[in-house]
Amino acid sequence: MELEDLKGIIRDVPDFPSKGIMFRDLTTLIKNGEALKVMSRGLAELYRDRGVTKVVGIESRGFIGGSILAYELGAGFVPARKPGKLPSVTIKKSYAKEYGVDTIELHSDAINENDVVVLHDDLLATGGTMKACYELVKSMNPKKIYINFVVELDALHGRDNLPSDVEITSLLRYE
Amino acid sequence: MELEDLKGIIRDVPDFPSKGIMFRDLTTLIKNGEALKVMSRGLAELYRDRGVTKVVGIESRGFIGGSILAYELGAGFVPARKPGKLPSVTIKKSYAKEYGVDTIELHSDAINENDVVVLHDDLLATGGTMKACYELVKSMNPKKIYINFVVELDALHGRDNLPSDVEITSLLRYE
Repeated sequence: MELEDLKGIIRDVPDFPSKGIMFRDLTTLIKNGEALKVMSRGLAELYRDRGVTKVVGIESRGFIGGSILAYELGAGFVPARKPGKLPSVTIKKSYAKEYGVDTIELHSDAINENDVVVLHDDLLATGGTMKACYELVKSMNPKKIYINFVVELDALHGRDNLPSDVEITSLLRYE
Repeated sequence: MELEDLKGIIRDVPDFPSKGIMFRDLTTLIKNGEALKVMSRGLAELYRDRGVTKVVGIESRGFIGGSILAYELGAGFVPARKPGKLPSVTIKKSYAKEYGVDTIELHSDAINENDVVVLHDDLLATGGTMKACYELVKSMNPKKIYINFVVELDALHGRDNLPSDVEITSLLRYE
């Protein structure tokens, strides 16, 4: 199996989570051991020899590829969580969603000034959550920040909401 | 670093999530790349040569060790999620919590009769969520089911709530 075969096993679910949205369901990819391996190695190849020390995964689906990516790179894994879930001292950031406001939270000791960090989520749609995550991590002054997704939905122009001076990669893109 | 060093980097947080609870915070372990590697290999060693085809991780923290375990074993990863998060046809199970009721959900096509399955969560406390997850997976008739945790809190006797004919492993135990 090759990278280009992965799209064929992602399930397209119309009208989820709401009418008019074509949901790209990665559960059919990751439940396939060979496809999970191809996906994971593909992600890791993007960041070999970059000196990555931490991968931040966004709750919940970003924990899956993010933790495997950290493990493959020999880096640590940092969960970016919904509010109230992390037990120690945190920093947090609220951001606007289509309806209402969401908040994302990180442990204050999760990242330090020597870290080279990859921020990971499964899917780039409008980019709001990732932007908030980037700003939180940026406030901790790591040496370098990269942004990575498994899937990017080009039609939603999420990149336009993310900082233009940061390298953004995605393994698979949909028009 | 060895398995026995891991407890020394787990952070103990008193009175979280409520008064009187000593929370074992694994974020300080997994943010350390070497410790994450030792933990992940330790988990994988427990299931080598067992023919495991799927690892089910329980949302959210069970996604971290569970997805790495799946990747290391060459198995697929299946997320057991909170209700309403999975986009396709699901089966679900509600179970009593200390205050109120929780529900756990799996895609109906996540497991089949040829699967050898490891159910994974980060921590065994009272075992209520894992028991519900076991019953859901059992209803899909896989060939074999194992249950695995990173940390087990012996004082809470969670094993007594889990089926006695299933092999349960945990990497680290606290009295």
